[in-house]
Amino acid sequence: MRKWVIHEILADAALSHASVPVISGSERFTYASLYDRSLRLANSLSRQGIGKGTVVGVMDVNSHRYLELKYALSMLGAVIHTINFRLPWDDLVFTVKHAHDQWLFVWDGFGELASRIAQEVPQVVWMGSDRGAGYEDFITAGHSELPQAACSVEETDAYSIFYITGTTGVPKGISYSHCQMLTGSMQIAHHLGLHDTGAWLRADDVMMPLIPFFHIHGWGVPFIAPYLGAPLVLAEQRGPAEQLTLIEEHRVTWSNMVPTQLFMLLQQAGSKDPNLAHVPLKVLTGGSSLSTGLAEQAHRAGVTFSLIYGGSDQLGTAISVAPGLDGAARLVRLSTHMTAFPYVRVEVRNQFGTSVDSDGQEMGEVWVQSPWIPNGYVDNPEESKRAFFDGWFKSGDLAVRYPDGSFYVMDRLKDAIKSGGEWIASSVIESVISEVPGVKAVAVIGQPDPAWGERPIAIVEAQSTTTRENIRQHLDAAVARGRLAKFWIPDSIRFIESMPLTSAGKIHKAALRQMGSVSSSDLG
Amino acid sequence: MRKWVIHEILADAALSHASVPVISGSERFTYASLYDRSLRLANSLSRQGIGKGTVVGVMDVNSHRYLELKYALSMLGAVIHTINFRLPWDDLVFTVKHAHDQWLFVWDGFGELASRIAQEVPQVVWMGSDRGAGYEDFITAGHSELPQAACSVEETDAYSIFYITGTTGVPKGISYSHCQMLTGSMQIAHHLGLHDTGAWLRADDVMMPLIPFFHIHGWGVPFIAPYLGAPLVLAEQRGPAEQLTLIEEHRVTWSNMVPTQLFMLLQQAGSKDPNLAHVPLKVLTGGSSLSTGLAEQAHRAGVTFSLIYGGSDQLGTAISVAPGLDGAARLVRLSTHMTAFPYVRVEVRNQFGTSVDSDGQEMGEVWVQSPWIPNGYVDNPEESKRAFFDGWFKSGDLAVRYPDGSFYVMDRLKDAIKSGGEWIASSVIESVISEVPGVKAVAVIGQPDPAWGERPIAIVEAQSTTTRENIRQHLDAAVARGRLAKFWIPDSIRFIESMPLTSAGKIHKAALRQMGSVSSSDLG
Repeated sequence: MRKWVIHEILADAALSHASVPVISGSERFTYASLYDRSLRLANSLSRQGIGKGTVVGVMDVNSHRYLELKYALSMLGAVIHTINFRLPWDDLVFTVKHAHDQWLFVWDGFGELASRIAQEVPQVVWMGSDRGAGYEDFITAGHSELPQAACSVEETDAYSIFYITGTTGVPKGISYSHCQMLTGSMQIAHHLGLHDTGAWLRADDVMMPLIPFFHIHGWGVPFIAPYLGAPLVLAEQRGPAEQLTLIEEHRVTWSNMVPTQLFMLLQQAGSKDPNLAHVPLKVLTGGSSLSTGLAEQAHRAGVTFSLIYGGSDQLGTAISVAPGLDGAARLVRLSTHMTAFPYVRVEVRNQFGTSVDSDGQEMGEVWVQSPWIPNGYVDNPEESKRAFFDGWFKSGDLAVRYPDGSFYVMDRLKDAIKSGGEWIASSVIESVISEVPGVKAVAVIGQPDPAWGERPIAIVEAQSTTTRENIRQHLDAAVARGRLAKFWIPDSIRFIESMPLTSAGKIHKAALRQMGSVSSSDLG
Repeated sequence: MRKWVIHEILADAALSHASVPVISGSERFTYASLYDRSLRLANSLSRQGIGKGTVVGVMDVNSHRYLELKYALSMLGAVIHTINFRLPWDDLVFTVKHAHDQWLFVWDGFGELASRIAQEVPQVVWMGSDRGAGYEDFITAGHSELPQAACSVEETDAYSIFYITGTTGVPKGISYSHCQMLTGSMQIAHHLGLHDTGAWLRADDVMMPLIPFFHIHGWGVPFIAPYLGAPLVLAEQRGPAEQLTLIEEHRVTWSNMVPTQLFMLLQQAGSKDPNLAHVPLKVLTGGSSLSTGLAEQAHRAGVTFSLIYGGSDQLGTAISVAPGLDGAARLVRLSTHMTAFPYVRVEVRNQFGTSVDSDGQEMGEVWVQSPWIPNGYVDNPEESKRAFFDGWFKSGDLAVRYPDGSFYVMDRLKDAIKSGGEWIASSVIESVISEVPGVKAVAVIGQPDPAWGERPIAIVEAQSTTTRENIRQHLDAAVARGRLAKFWIPDSIRFIESMPLTSAGKIHKAALRQMGSVSSSDLG
């Protein structure tokens, strides 16, 4: 019997899609050659004592090496810890210690950071360099038969561990089995293939994941692409300008990225061509809300998109679909309304645990059930108890629900502002402000207020031509059109040189709050 | 945590696709109303003592009742025995006894057959009539909350039993768990959504399954349609003329059927309109090979199609795909080359269990591995041992393999003809003969031959204008073009009034062989 274990995906692809290309930077592979390399790697690592349950940290950009490790470690029943190299140093060390990484595979391109983290793990393999025991040596030394260990890997064995990093507290580890990671990833592909989304996926798409592989395995693309037999382009360390070159050179048709990456890519493209590329690009985006401004900018550039809802502690849960919709209505729906995957149950509940009305008005927290959600965080009973309850995962996201069952995530609960006992969704105000010409980034945060508890203020990064008055007028117009309640209008608008970002590329609201209640550029 | 159990599909659909219509004959339901009815039914049946492991036989046409029972019995952990009402009487009784059916839900429309089979089962519920305890009474009496029993239904619990009926021997029972039935069914939908097939499936298709629900649950459509939220049309007892009306009336875009049904539908349409319907129809066909003649006829009628390979003892395994192909090449590939689903491993092996060359020439038996193939037949160690070996299912199908990993099923091993030590694939000869104008059906069978062991003869049902000479000329032309080996040409061609069919609607070759070696109309 064949089992739902990760490495079977590449075994299948090597047979059925043997010559389909996988581009990694300037190197060219095929699914057959990558499978061969993964087998050799697995056999070499097996001889080194890596086996069932061995935790192996990997710190790399999106490369063929990372792909090979994802499959080779699966064959051995080892657990891959996908290290988030953008974490602050203390958190980075915490995750490596907490996961008990026994081996570290690290890309030399990280330089000093790589050298430092290498000292924290017993066994280190350098990738992309001549330092110490080299990665390519393992591949050369191994033979290309399926290792014996592969037969005893079970669907319910742990496949991977990674960490959720909030803006407060220590990182929380979460572990997924082969079957959980597989079904959670594939439901994304299935939904994109079968439903009317803006990130329509087919086996003949050329896929270039820009979500880093340490972030929920690049939202599953390293598994989805060989599962489909789709050509795969890995951008490695390349930035927006070179990503654009890769898109054009390899005729990439499908990508995933957070809104910030989409914004940077569009900025880059804007300077040379009205369209992003000469082929239509379909983008799956998520991780933070997509502003109306960015949605329209993407639309003008010929990029179609859908939004995915999920996270490290729930995997993918919902994707925006727009059956039968065109034009502006389609754009709005794809930017906002999330439809849960089959076998995922989403509820929006108030503080008493009762479902809110499906009226698109009442806000509550998103609770999620699915076959692939674990029961808690690794060795963290306190946080587990807070977030996992009675088979449900309490997401910490604030949403409204619509009569058709779809939901709209307005904010993180901790980012939402409670003013006079009512919720104000910062992301909705941010979306309105993003439409003002010249606005590059905007964050709305709560500020303590003696009368109302909290009041919103807006922090804006914009071109010098954009004035506070432009923004005020636009907000007033939004109130007049019913898009915002009048009491949602921020008490002040402050300009900032450049927005602080988290390790995941999102706006670092906690840092903004810490900057104090008055910014030097505040003249409002 | 949510589990991969069957009834969750309809629970999801009732929430996310509440008002999507389900047409059953002249009645109209929605996924919400069907879920409500299924809940009521389950609660009533629970009170009657139906629970985990109770085997319940269902004998019905494709109706809303059948759909409701598929879900209500899932909620109770009961096992649904989908009774093949086309079986010969002795076999029918055998299956009901062998499965230990404790209850029977039977449609009154079967008349005398229903009355007879009802005497073989302890508890009987009549459907669509006023006889005895009525089906609708159960629905009226139940309340619409999820029964307590549903919580203890596990993914690995048996969900269904059904029988494989060869043309020889007793029927063989096979049992599938919730997870096996679910994943096996959904891989069909996923493959049709993500790959370039002729039976492309999307959530906005209007689905009308013509494969009877007793046959591998209509190839999974009663699960696939609500999973997608696709409108569903159930044809109940309606024949080709009325099926055509349903297609036009409800703008059906997707259907499944065996080649014989496709032929009858096209015959029906041919008498009124050059096109099958006013909407393009996509058809998934299989169960027997698709002749070139029928493929071209479908193409002319504006019907696109793909072939599925599989069976009751392996579920779906492979579907024909034609990425990047157009015109005749596309038609040929979609009619012949099967590509295995991800996680399905297909090998073509010779009598020594060794893989044949992937040269499109050497024939061998199709061996299949997948996560959903059981270990054997129910209470039948002898047949289990013959067909299930070391995790593989030996299909009894004869195929060749191509360098790209696809395979072409030429024949059933038992239908193939061994002449002078070489295999002759009857279905390939049948396909060539089917192209001759006026030929309605054709079967090529082996006839004992003192010199060669066996020699092929062709049995043909044709219009009176079609002559033996027409067929001979066409066969000679096929030899000249390299489509057939010269020694494959049948020794004689015999005409028959009407072809005998099996309970599954396939040509009954065993019956043809029994008719003796000389037919009264044989003048060749």
